Amino acid sequence: MTVKAYGAHAGDQPLQSLDISRRATGAHDVQIEIAYCGVCHSDLHQVRSEWAGTLYPCVPGHEIVGRVSAVGAHVAGVKPGDLVGVGCIVDSCKHCADCEQGLENYCDHMVGTYNGPTPDAPGHTLGGYSQRIVVHERYVLHIRHPEEQLAAVAPLLCAGITTWSPLRHWKAGPGHRVGVVGIGGLGHMGIKLAHAMGAHVVAFTTSESKREAARALGADEVVVSRNAEEMAAQAQSLDFILNTVAAPHDLDAFFALLKRDGTMALVGAPATPHPSPQVFNLIMKRRSLAGSMIGGIPETQEMLDFCAEHGIVADIEMIRADEINAAYERMLRGDVKYRFVIDNATLAA
Amino acid sequence: MTVKAYGAHAGDQPLQSLDISRRATGAHDVQIEIAYCGVCHSDLHQVRSEWAGTLYPCVPGHEIVGRVSAVGAHVAGVKPGDLVGVGCIVDSCKHCADCEQGLENYCDHMVGTYNGPTPDAPGHTLGGYSQRIVVHERYVLHIRHPEEQLAAVAPLLCAGITTWSPLRHWKAGPGHRVGVVGIGGLGHMGIKLAHAMGAHVVAFTTSESKREAARALGADEVVVSRNAEEMAAQAQSLDFILNTVAAPHDLDAFFALLKRDGTMALVGAPATPHPSPQVFNLIMKRRSLAGSMIGGIPETQEMLDFCAEHGIVADIEMIRADEINAAYERMLRGDVKYRFVIDNATLAA
Repeated sequence: MTVKAYGAHAGDQPLQSLDISRRATGAHDVQIEIAYCGVCHSDLHQVRSEWAGTLYPCVPGHEIVGRVSAVGAHVAGVKPGDLVGVGCIVDSCKHCADCEQGLENYCDHMVGTYNGPTPDAPGHTLGGYSQRIVVHERYVLHIRHPEEQLAAVAPLLCAGITTWSPLRHWKAGPGHRVGVVGIGGLGHMGIKLAHAMGAHVVAFTTSESKREAARALGADEVVVSRNAEEMAAQAQSLDFILNTVAAPHDLDAFFALLKRDGTMALVGAPATPHPSPQVFNLIMKRRSLAGSMIGGIPETQEMLDFCAEHGIVADIEMIRADEINAAYERMLRGDVKYRFVIDNATLAA
Repeated sequence: MTVKAYGAHAGDQPLQSLDISRRATGAHDVQIEIAYCGVCHSDLHQVRSEWAGTLYPCVPGHEIVGRVSAVGAHVAGVKPGDLVGVGCIVDSCKHCADCEQGLENYCDHMVGTYNGPTPDAPGHTLGGYSQRIVVHERYVLHIRHPEEQLAAVAPLLCAGITTWSPLRHWKAGPGHRVGVVGIGGLGHMGIKLAHAMGAHVVAFTTSESKREAARALGADEVVVSRNAEEMAAQAQSLDFILNTVAAPHDLDAFFALLKRDGTMALVGAPATPHPSPQVFNLIMKRRSLAGSMIGGIPETQEMLDFCAEHGIVADIEMIRADEINAAYERMLRGDVKYRFVIDNATLAA
């Protein structure tokens, strides 16, 4: 099956309309007509070859929502017409300890939704900037939000689960003071989710102008991290910090805000390393610096159901497929509140 | 009371014999006749002013063992003649959450055994390179080893608890694969303790010559970390790494050896930071870099009792007090297996 997509033939070329093929729907496969696809910063890194190993043509997109258009003979969990989502993962080994525990995101053979190895032509996976996708049922999520929220659900598939997983793993909840560093695509979801989990949320931003916006997202307190007094007032007060900032920055200033046994989890990987953290800051209060990558399939479903129940979606700005190159430039300037979402119906244009 | 001690009047002067005074034994105090005192690398850093804020005269020593010579009216737990120990802590606030949980080591007002603030003359604490010490009963540990092992028990008070606490906190035990990086004063205790806890112990050293010694200490496997093949064979195999190396070194090579959710705990603080770790190594498998500092009083007692039960002591080389300056030079060359211990009877000479 040939479908319209948007992608690039090289790292220095703009994205453009492409025809790509999708495999026939296998016995365990779900074919999805994609309604919307969120635009993640990873898309830009990958398609522009800022990360190693980009394969072309490259069709990004791993915040996919749509409607089931066909299912294979052995698919029991979804049926044509269902609202579903696909995130960053379209395959994994299915039998390692990580897969068995529902942490496919940590499987050594996890296949990303784009740029991952696949027997399908052209030999690597092609993502959600496309009309349809065919995915093994294991990696297809149910969406229980009202259909009118569907576009704003898309970013939950990456930005949502990437912040949900560490918040859950490090037990954010009532009685916990949780810091969220950075108020962008990931951070704005982190604030919403931590707030809905019942934690006391302290948002950190470098920008005075984001103070009110962070409160509106659910932050109980907002700290402008350039303000030494505001930072000092939070010393040793936080149980957990979710750090969503991928640009290299001073981690020590945030370690000082953690209580004993507190953890700061990084969910963004900078292109060059952060300045090396002071070991003393870790030793002094048995603090930890951790990392977390997306989330597993069962916890992604749990997150989506939680969000449906609590009426949580991303704050988005809808764009046409042919606006994607301009949208990337705006993302680089931080000029988006807080996630672009492509209306995939415009791919047919 | 005036007692003999060994210490320095300035960072650039050798240690020499000094007379110091000890306070009268208060109602909650225990006066101890010190039999032996271990020589920790911290002693050298402090007395030579390699760490900020050294107060002179400086009398180091926080691996203290001896016999109770007097107790205050309200002391119930020990009596004259008992074998006891004092580690790195001689006071704390006694009422914060850390103190209430028996983690006096993380109390913001923890007072170190030397160079800590005290109302006693000369205004800062003086350590165990001395004939006697007077300590609040809360910080005095029972020693249940046979008396002939007393000298080799001394290093348990710092090197022992500093490795015991993180091994316990991160649940080293049967079925766990534990790495111990560095085979010195701390590392040799880490190997012995992790082995006795029932973990599978993989020791890491830069030195081919330490291979047999590490096995003798209880390591199940020994990896020479300069050997890329040996390192690769341990990839993603360890649940926990206890890193005892204080010199700046490449942490990434060790992160790669941790399983998903594995932690590497640092117990040494380098004078200059380690090369900045790659965030990707943390994110990929939800790994953590943590720090741990000494241990609390109840867990120190637990460690001492465990060691008495399992016949565990440090490997030591006994020295006279007037050999301390030469011993420091040998420590700097790594020429000690694995801990110097001062025979405090030689202070009277």
